[in-house]
Amino acid sequence: MVIHNPQEIERRSMEIIGEELARRLGGRPLDPLERPVIQRVIHTTADFDYLENLVFSEGAVEAGLAALQEGASILTDTEMAKAGINKSVLASLGGQVHCLMGEEETRRRAEAEGTTRAVASIERAADWQLPLVVAIGNAPTALLRLAELIEAGRMRPRLVIGVPVGFVNVLESKEAILRLPVPSIVARGRKGGSTVAAAICNALLYQLRR
Amino acid sequence: MVIHNPQEIERRSMEIIGEELARRLGGRPLDPLERPVIQRVIHTTADFDYLENLVFSEGAVEAGLAALQEGASILTDTEMAKAGINKSVLASLGGQVHCLMGEEETRRRAEAEGTTRAVASIERAADWQLPLVVAIGNAPTALLRLAELIEAGRMRPRLVIGVPVGFVNVLESKEAILRLPVPSIVARGRKGGSTVAAAICNALLYQLRR
Repeated sequence: MVIHNPQEIERRSMEIIGEELARRLGGRPLDPLERPVIQRVIHTTADFDYLENLVFSEGAVEAGLAALQEGASILTDTEMAKAGINKSVLASLGGQVHCLMGEEETRRRAEAEGTTRAVASIERAADWQLPLVVAIGNAPTALLRLAELIEAGRMRPRLVIGVPVGFVNVLESKEAILRLPVPSIVARGRKGGSTVAAAICNALLYQLRR
Repeated sequence: MVIHNPQEIERRSMEIIGEELARRLGGRPLDPLERPVIQRVIHTTADFDYLENLVFSEGAVEAGLAALQEGASILTDTEMAKAGINKSVLASLGGQVHCLMGEEETRRRAEAEGTTRAVASIERAADWQLPLVVAIGNAPTALLRLAELIEAGRMRPRLVIGVPVGFVNVLESKEAILRLPVPSIVARGRKGGSTVAAAICNALLYQLRR
């Protein structure tokens, strides 16, 4: 039977995910703040690997919720993630989504410093000194540079969502973030991507929807 | 060791994917036209399930390449897929990407017909009578309506990329497309999404890059 109502589709989807999670967890409890994030990522990917892959630093969800509640903006490394993040909920809290990858200033800076646009984007954001949730869904080099800037005390994101996808630099970049005392939500291993980055942001935003 | 050059990262990634595919295939050959599509989807998802999930109708890749070469446009159901499709290569061939989900006219039509915006988007596109590659990455109801319109002879897309993701209506919508004599690339099962839709479009476009 085909369900047509989008809200009903989402409700039924979350119910199916909940049942399948219960079966896989076999009584093991999920943190009540982490559960909506895990469920939304699985909703977005239909991939239950994320039940095991997603790693939350102590207090990461609280840190992200508090930051967004206070009007923090989101910086991401892909136009796709930017397109997927719920900008009206974010705006109602006072935040915006920034993706600097396509901007002329980023291109200029990358060229001047002999680096990539992904790295130049992060360096530009470090200059802002604004409260940020940083969501990396594509470029592990951006996540690595972010880790260096955090370690050097030049950047203090309120939350790092570290979910680049791929085969080169990806594992290293995620482990670099996990070693730091910064609130982080990371998809361990090769998987992740723009849809996962957006889903994690939205899972936080939907808990704050007014 | 961290590789910084984006082209070199992509080259090395494709090499790793090729090696892992060879191991999984154990001598089984891949169609040379389908291989780049499979590789790019795995590159985008880091998920080797797509080696088994992706189903190509006979001549589907040729049909998509010919359509894009002749200037066909791409219709998609998500802003994320639209953001991810390489619009400069598409434009160099004469095509554009359309996503009608956010347009006022779509909202009006959905309301007037008591349907969803996803379904109304497809119906609007049926009125155009333009050569289209239709790439559905999110809404199975859009894919189901597309199948009905094709069956009724009201729409003849040059290629259907059917990769909605999720838990409700998704399997049915993909099987509905697979039953029709339309060129199609479908991700069987629950998986798919905007990044997969965009990756399949880009895998075709990159073979036509001038």
